[in-house]
Amino acid sequence: MTIRAEARPTATADRRAREEALVQRVVRSFDACSDPRLQELVTALVRHLHAFVREVGLTEAEWGVAVDFLARCGRITDEHRQEFILLSDVLGVSMQTVTVNDEAVGGATESTVFGPFFVEGSPRIEIGGDISGGAPGEPCWVDGAVRDIAGEPVAGARVEVWEADGDGFYDVQYPDARVAGRAHLFTGDDGGFGFWAVTPTPYPIPADGPVGELLSAVGRSPMRAAHLHFMVTAPGFRRLVTHIFVDGDEHVGRDSVFGEQASLVKRFVRHEASEPVPAGRDLGGLPWSSSRFDIVLAPEPG
Amino acid sequence: MTIRAEARPTATADRRAREEALVQRVVRSFDACSDPRLQELVTALVRHLHAFVREVGLTEAEWGVAVDFLARCGRITDEHRQEFILLSDVLGVSMQTVTVNDEAVGGATESTVFGPFFVEGSPRIEIGGDISGGAPGEPCWVDGAVRDIAGEPVAGARVEVWEADGDGFYDVQYPDARVAGRAHLFTGDDGGFGFWAVTPTPYPIPADGPVGELLSAVGRSPMRAAHLHFMVTAPGFRRLVTHIFVDGDEHVGRDSVFGEQASLVKRFVRHEASEPVPAGRDLGGLPWSSSRFDIVLAPEPG
Repeated sequence: MTIRAEARPTATADRRAREEALVQRVVRSFDACSDPRLQELVTALVRHLHAFVREVGLTEAEWGVAVDFLARCGRITDEHRQEFILLSDVLGVSMQTVTVNDEAVGGATESTVFGPFFVEGSPRIEIGGDISGGAPGEPCWVDGAVRDIAGEPVAGARVEVWEADGDGFYDVQYPDARVAGRAHLFTGDDGGFGFWAVTPTPYPIPADGPVGELLSAVGRSPMRAAHLHFMVTAPGFRRLVTHIFVDGDEHVGRDSVFGEQASLVKRFVRHEASEPVPAGRDLGGLPWSSSRFDIVLAPEPG
Repeated sequence: MTIRAEARPTATADRRAREEALVQRVVRSFDACSDPRLQELVTALVRHLHAFVREVGLTEAEWGVAVDFLARCGRITDEHRQEFILLSDVLGVSMQTVTVNDEAVGGATESTVFGPFFVEGSPRIEIGGDISGGAPGEPCWVDGAVRDIAGEPVAGARVEVWEADGDGFYDVQYPDARVAGRAHLFTGDDGGFGFWAVTPTPYPIPADGPVGELLSAVGRSPMRAAHLHFMVTAPGFRRLVTHIFVDGDEHVGRDSVFGEQASLVKRFVRHEASEPVPAGRDLGGLPWSSSRFDIVLAPEPG
């Protein structure tokens, strides 16, 4: 027993030294890299991956499961499905990447994840128009104003909006070529905007692949909190990519991709069919909702 | 200028707090996991990946390149090619996994990476036989003995051996169904073994995919130091997976997968055709090489 008790710490110290020497050796293998940023990225990745392996004492069987998991993520990935983005999303890596690039500036609106469903070339609508393109769902009026950090209105800002329909699917998830639930408009001289959409509903991220298996194995839900995407651009301002979330949605606080920020959770007011409807729209006697989103753009850095 | 100088640290402290809060939130999302080891692995992975993103200030464009890189690794991976293993190998993650599981025990032979080229069901040879199966290359005699940490011979240990041929390819890399450069044999009563093989030669890991691009971008060579694989098993002993490397090979010390250990670099002696040949083999007047590899097995843990 004495031999064993003395031998163990020695062996462990020796093993730790070999582990550390290996980290240093791998880091040095990038010494000849002529791109300093690439060298910084890859050596930092090496240090953090090795720290992970060492901290958990990864077994060779677990390493094999991880390698197989990545291969299966690759197998399900095609031009319509990107499992590695889902993986990054559910590990919070996508949201952390947003966060490290989102230096708070004078009360500017916070960012969140871009998501995989933005499409270039959305239809243009006028203020008061409808982005839904016939998508099923409860009508929802959204308005607000775009201002700078001094409170001055930003006229002519481009406001891109996209969302899932009332069944929880984006237009691009349907096999037909529909364009629905996406559009862009420009703010007026007072910085104001307003449009019709459908009330956001929660939906699951695609859960029929390895990432879905992982969520299931760890007891996590694939549901995203209901949200409406915004991308706002104007000359001289930092591009804003964000969502608004629906206050009271049970999934707020446990969004599967960690996209919520407290400042982005908005009240969506329910309206009876009998209430006056904005922008002179005829809703055919249906109830509707409304929300307000005032946006503050940060100045372009530099 | 004063406003800016004062505002920046505040903003940064706020951002850091948001980054840290996000890490904690993602870690807590695994609280309901009913498998403690899985929870440990995934939460540690989250902490280390987030630490990486935060340390380097990963940009969204860089994140996009990384996601695309993984998707391209997936696209080239099939039943014959596993780009994620190559990626793990060149980042030293495979070797680190070996290292953390290779607690030094009383002078036991060190381990190294398993590699992707082992095949179950290799031919059995007798002591003194030939593993090459007709593979091209310079004949090489390898002998040694298997002992325990007390120095006692281990009789009947199974010694699996596999290697690339003199052209740098394993049998499974050829389109035909050849079985060459692989066999197993059993140690004699004195723990001894000896077999003919071909002298190991350096070869590149497959470099025509994303991992090859990465190596090229960072100025690293895809070459593996010349080596001969061993897997040694015997009842009551820890399985040993290792290589021997060729002293004097210019790639020793910069193996692309970091597999070398100083203790595994062996002298390969060159012999003229005129010298006596072991195991009564007729080499038809060719020169040959020889090496000795004495193996010490650690006891099974527990």
